[in-house]
Amino acid sequence: MTNFSWKVNKTSSVSRARTGVINTPHGEINTPAFIFCGTKAALKSCSAEEAIRNNTQIILSNTYHLMLQPGSEIISNHGGLHKFMNWHGPMLTDSGGFQIFSLGYGSVADEIKGRNQMMIRNKSLLNISEEGALFKSYIDGSKHLLTPEKSIAIQRDIGADLILVFDECTPFHVEKSYTAESMRRSHRWSTRSLNSFELARKFKSTEGSAGSQSIYGIIQGGIFYDLRDESIDFNLHSKNFFGLAIGGSLGCSKEEMHQVVEYIASKLKDKHPVHLLGIGDPSDIWSLVRWGVDTFDCVSPTRLARHGAALKKTRLGKINIKNSKYREDLNPIDSKCQCKTCAKYSLSYLHHLLKSDELLGLQLITNHNIYFMNDLMLYIRKAINEDKLLEAEKDWYQD
Amino acid sequence: MTNFSWKVNKTSSVSRARTGVINTPHGEINTPAFIFCGTKAALKSCSAEEAIRNNTQIILSNTYHLMLQPGSEIISNHGGLHKFMNWHGPMLTDSGGFQIFSLGYGSVADEIKGRNQMMIRNKSLLNISEEGALFKSYIDGSKHLLTPEKSIAIQRDIGADLILVFDECTPFHVEKSYTAESMRRSHRWSTRSLNSFELARKFKSTEGSAGSQSIYGIIQGGIFYDLRDESIDFNLHSKNFFGLAIGGSLGCSKEEMHQVVEYIASKLKDKHPVHLLGIGDPSDIWSLVRWGVDTFDCVSPTRLARHGAALKKTRLGKINIKNSKYREDLNPIDSKCQCKTCAKYSLSYLHHLLKSDELLGLQLITNHNIYFMNDLMLYIRKAINEDKLLEAEKDWYQD
Repeated sequence: MTNFSWKVNKTSSVSRARTGVINTPHGEINTPAFIFCGTKAALKSCSAEEAIRNNTQIILSNTYHLMLQPGSEIISNHGGLHKFMNWHGPMLTDSGGFQIFSLGYGSVADEIKGRNQMMIRNKSLLNISEEGALFKSYIDGSKHLLTPEKSIAIQRDIGADLILVFDECTPFHVEKSYTAESMRRSHRWSTRSLNSFELARKFKSTEGSAGSQSIYGIIQGGIFYDLRDESIDFNLHSKNFFGLAIGGSLGCSKEEMHQVVEYIASKLKDKHPVHLLGIGDPSDIWSLVRWGVDTFDCVSPTRLARHGAALKKTRLGKINIKNSKYREDLNPIDSKCQCKTCAKYSLSYLHHLLKSDELLGLQLITNHNIYFMNDLMLYIRKAINEDKLLEAEKDWYQD
Repeated sequence: MTNFSWKVNKTSSVSRARTGVINTPHGEINTPAFIFCGTKAALKSCSAEEAIRNNTQIILSNTYHLMLQPGSEIISNHGGLHKFMNWHGPMLTDSGGFQIFSLGYGSVADEIKGRNQMMIRNKSLLNISEEGALFKSYIDGSKHLLTPEKSIAIQRDIGADLILVFDECTPFHVEKSYTAESMRRSHRWSTRSLNSFELARKFKSTEGSAGSQSIYGIIQGGIFYDLRDESIDFNLHSKNFFGLAIGGSLGCSKEEMHQVVEYIASKLKDKHPVHLLGIGDPSDIWSLVRWGVDTFDCVSPTRLARHGAALKKTRLGKINIKNSKYREDLNPIDSKCQCKTCAKYSLSYLHHLLKSDELLGLQLITNHNIYFMNDLMLYIRKAINEDKLLEAEKDWYQD
């Protein structure tokens, strides 16, 4: 793990909240940090330059999408995803497992928000075996078998700094026995992922197309605390995990998600940076940071923008700029916000762009939402360093 | 016309091609210049900052669209369109006439490209009378009467530097007698536009919401040279036109368009900058500059980008990046192009973005096409100043 390091700087005196620094060959990530989703090698409606201008530290891309389009070989031919998409900061890829299973079952966020009533929503997931997962491409219906070894090979072609072991993202609506069975298979896949990662490092002259990489383990076990214990034990005893991610089902409500995450994070020490997969609404982040989570990823900042919603420092958390009440509003989204959109454009103009189907509207709101999330994380880091996170949370809100 | 001036710098020894400078309160325009279309107060997929970064000198917006959405009052409340859309350079608005009639009849470009076989394509244009044009909103079907006085009032609210008289854009497929009748009505509308413009300047403390403005007359007469003579005579004898635009039908083929424009421009002297309405394909610009046209506007650079086409210095003029032959192409659109897109992104990446429906693809190709047009105009200005436009045209092409 050349060029990689993780250091905790400051821990809160009243919670597990902590600041730290993850060093990667493409720069450092000050934590707690938000990881923005560039699912298909692009942030939605936002160039790499704009993301940097909005203080973005790290982005992620999805192995599942990239293996199908454009294919990892094309990315490797460019010298890795950093060069392909012109993002030269730290980067993470997931293993592909999450998408195969969430597209097969429905996502963790869907479950937490109560949107998933059926276990199998479509037939894109064809079969799970000890070998791996067989699924149909969402693009052309072609069949693909993804195995731990193949996931690692693809992630090495893509060349992100931080990569993940291949896992099954077990859904909520299954028996405990299935969750246990799935978790243990994921542990075996995890070991195969690690072996494959180590073997490739040993015998290849280059370490992934963009340079050296580090790997995260994933803690499974759904909502069953004894299974989570077993998975924590497995992951803490596996050598060579640079970081640990919290995966699997987190329950079917926000409350349950918070309980599960708090339980897991309380068992982890300072040895690894802790990533929470796929969760990161601003309203959740305050608590999750207190439980000890270091990094988050979520599509919400860019997805909300595409629906015309801008993030706000209010209890409600956002406003819908399409609302006719903004038609004549000469104010920016937030007059105290330092982002380019708030400096230059009124709500009235943004409302007009949305009404007129001008793509520029999505670009400008996306810019604000990305800036907002980075600003929130900076504010949280400062509060932790000054050991006044609870007060800072109250001060954050303008209402 | 405070703060406005027009000066010819250099005229070719073998054609009417000339370089010049239009001074406006928002800066100068070096001509020949391309005017980019921000129809609804936004360049498609391109922020004002990006347009500046790509060397854009001037943009236009459309009175017809803006009067319906968001309405000129909202723009005026912002202090004019410059502030509304955060574009602080020179700006032009058309009078609304062109859209009312082109949406009613089909556009001039449609005619030239042989796309318009029916005189009336839809019923958005309800009636033309001496008073003005009655039309239905494309947004909600509401009825609106646009008159010369109303067009000028709206254009003063919008506050562009350069504005146009209200005219009927007569279609090609009509009798000469209708073209003559329409032209003479447009002349009367032109006089009313000018009177309204002068009256407002005289009695209002502010001169349009963004400051002082100058007005262009429009030369009508379709493809009938004697009518064009009559219209040129009318426009040259009208006082207070800062510039002259070539409007009306330009025939039903590129050849006819070039003949009509050449004829008109040959009758105009150095007193006015000459604008050609709605025409500006790169392949046409070389000849049009030689006939003596100073400024062009056309939606093609941004529209082509939205269809995945990038402008190239080739006889064909563009490439379709969606073509599968670019799937693995590590080269930029043009390795010699200095634009940000060509500096940072491969054709393979742009192809991937288009295949993945990522809006970033449109943004990056739009950037290139805008840079390309400004680069072409800069190259043409340099060639005219060095009096070697014909040689420069041959050297422009890479094939």
